[in-house]
Amino acid sequence: MAVNLVIPPESNIFPVPGVQIGTAEAGVRKAGRRDLTVFRFCEGTSVAGVFTRNRFRAAPVRVCETHLAGSLDIQALVVNTGNANAGTGEAGMQAASQTCIALAEVLDIKPQQVLPFSTGVILEPLPVEKLVAALPRAAADLDDAHWLQAAHSIMTTDTQPKVVSRRLKLGDTLVTITGISKGAGMIRPNMATMLGFLATDAGIAPELLKDMVRTVADQSFNRITVDGDTSTNDSFIIAATGKADVSIEAVSDPRYTQLLQALSEAACELAQKIVRDAEGATKFMTIQVQEAGTSAEALKVAYAVAQSPLVKTAFYASDPNLGRILCAIGYAGIDDLDIGGIRLWLGDVLVASNGERHASYREEDGQRVMKEAEILVRIALGRGNASETVYTCDFSHEYVSINADYRS
Amino acid sequence: MAVNLVIPPESNIFPVPGVQIGTAEAGVRKAGRRDLTVFRFCEGTSVAGVFTRNRFRAAPVRVCETHLAGSLDIQALVVNTGNANAGTGEAGMQAASQTCIALAEVLDIKPQQVLPFSTGVILEPLPVEKLVAALPRAAADLDDAHWLQAAHSIMTTDTQPKVVSRRLKLGDTLVTITGISKGAGMIRPNMATMLGFLATDAGIAPELLKDMVRTVADQSFNRITVDGDTSTNDSFIIAATGKADVSIEAVSDPRYTQLLQALSEAACELAQKIVRDAEGATKFMTIQVQEAGTSAEALKVAYAVAQSPLVKTAFYASDPNLGRILCAIGYAGIDDLDIGGIRLWLGDVLVASNGERHASYREEDGQRVMKEAEILVRIALGRGNASETVYTCDFSHEYVSINADYRS
Repeated sequence: MAVNLVIPPESNIFPVPGVQIGTAEAGVRKAGRRDLTVFRFCEGTSVAGVFTRNRFRAAPVRVCETHLAGSLDIQALVVNTGNANAGTGEAGMQAASQTCIALAEVLDIKPQQVLPFSTGVILEPLPVEKLVAALPRAAADLDDAHWLQAAHSIMTTDTQPKVVSRRLKLGDTLVTITGISKGAGMIRPNMATMLGFLATDAGIAPELLKDMVRTVADQSFNRITVDGDTSTNDSFIIAATGKADVSIEAVSDPRYTQLLQALSEAACELAQKIVRDAEGATKFMTIQVQEAGTSAEALKVAYAVAQSPLVKTAFYASDPNLGRILCAIGYAGIDDLDIGGIRLWLGDVLVASNGERHASYREEDGQRVMKEAEILVRIALGRGNASETVYTCDFSHEYVSINADYRS
Repeated sequence: MAVNLVIPPESNIFPVPGVQIGTAEAGVRKAGRRDLTVFRFCEGTSVAGVFTRNRFRAAPVRVCETHLAGSLDIQALVVNTGNANAGTGEAGMQAASQTCIALAEVLDIKPQQVLPFSTGVILEPLPVEKLVAALPRAAADLDDAHWLQAAHSIMTTDTQPKVVSRRLKLGDTLVTITGISKGAGMIRPNMATMLGFLATDAGIAPELLKDMVRTVADQSFNRITVDGDTSTNDSFIIAATGKADVSIEAVSDPRYTQLLQALSEAACELAQKIVRDAEGATKFMTIQVQEAGTSAEALKVAYAVAQSPLVKTAFYASDPNLGRILCAIGYAGIDDLDIGGIRLWLGDVLVASNGERHASYREEDGQRVMKEAEILVRIALGRGNASETVYTCDFSHEYVSINADYRS
């Protein structure tokens, strides 16, 4: 029941020169389902990533951080679904390393040039031998046209594959940005993890890409919330192959800002797709906080509203429930918040001002907006010029059903 | 569907000398239902309170704070259900004051000696004339035996009245503690507010009671969470009449600690009753965090677990879902948390240690604990000696149904 989630036609999914993708059936998740994905990057590719802040970081996340900090270029990614290799202790670290060693052999590169990713059940040992056995088949499948296939094979409990692809001119050069993501849907108990992979054939100096990936994540994957739970495996990677005749060496290069902008938009689209496909979602909400004193302040308010179960159930019910939104703003943690300065809009309807319902507000106007599948909640705090936007979904019976299902 | 909520028999609800209670039908909530409650205190009663930290503080809360800061003794409380007088602007402040003025006339005291409380619909004008008209009837009903009646008449969408009553010896003197509360259940959209009123015939210097009420609240009403939403009207009041032959003037008085302990236990019981009667609750969970570096750290972890929708739905499903609990501990916000030091128990079953499932753990053991209606989740962080306990409930289909119901 994804909300307006668009899957682009194959013809609009542009390969990224320098990136090949292969998938295979390793039998980790379930039979008859590709659950192993390999990315192969050409030499000279810059790779950077950001990872979950959860202290319960899964083994593959810790291996990724080590390999990214190393001196060798990253040349391949390996992703399995069905098992998150999280909460698996020392054996889990071994399993993640073994996977890298095995893929390195197949591709004739060094294990430190491989980044491993796992998503699926937590606290279960990773069946590494199944992965190792399937790696040659995944490698044999490597092709630059396999993005949609990869979007399918990294899915756990997502209902739809998530792909974004676009082309833009940097200077006179046409470059491509294509990426995939999978959801944070913890649909079955212990199913976790949001993954995002974005690639471009533009060239970016590794140090610049490191800053870029953080900035991009902050504008995209760090601006969505489904249920406030941060998984043990969340990972987001950007690879820049440099196959296009564009090489960005300095932030001062005007193409840096252009590319940053384009990557942020692509990542934001991938992030929003995760919310649109969140478990039980029937509505997609954009929470926009304006006139905040600081960006941190704006985010506090946006998340308080976006994560309030009472607000989310009200949206599920299409109930223009102003009280709950104002209440969430009130407990967001801004100690000197003057409620008299707050204005609240549902879509284009001004519903509250001066700490009370706006005189012109009519229930039927709020009702009209709440019935839509995509709703903008705009909050002006009257404190300054900072603004932030967070994306979320509603809270439905289906969410509870999905998450209360016993593991099976 | 309250979870093990016990209503004491009338014979075990002890009147508090110096406290009289009257109720009446004002017709604010619904016909045929007492919705107005008046407390009358004898001269010399010390009264102190704590109120919501929500910046959207309702008008009555703001009037309470003003009157408590004033020079006159508080001699009466007036509580209405059906309307929260919140988000009502200047008119709301007027309405709250009018109520105080009207009750003061009836009781022949000063308006500043009255504390007003409202709970119910937010953003609707308070029908103050209905309250004023019913006040003489409530005053005529004043009687020291009306605690259970009051527990009924302050209910909004609670399914059960919440009363606690006990007697204890302070030195050689028998003193009484009796109190009532109502839930934070936002069952119908915009129904809000937790209220707690506790009275004793022990005598306590006003200044001491001010500190006491904060300490007591921190051990009780500030240790429960249903959905993480803090209402606009939350209030907790302690009144000490001094009718018993006990007068505590200094913290050094050993009876101070005794009384504080007894009041905290009584308040904790009232607070737990709110969780037991929370909307849709089918399970009562105690989240105990031990071996934390600081109390604040322990609370972060306890609330992360207690408020995770994924954890709460797993409890609803009786699913011993360790991954979700460990995951919540991991994102609680302790940056230097070493997951290797964590141990996790479900009831008496050690389920996880060293950041992974405990070797001896068997699914059926966790399953056995999860099937119970009262579950203790114990988390040892291995960082220090601080510990905190938080009380919560599970997250059911019924919660969504209740909160998605359109206002009607």
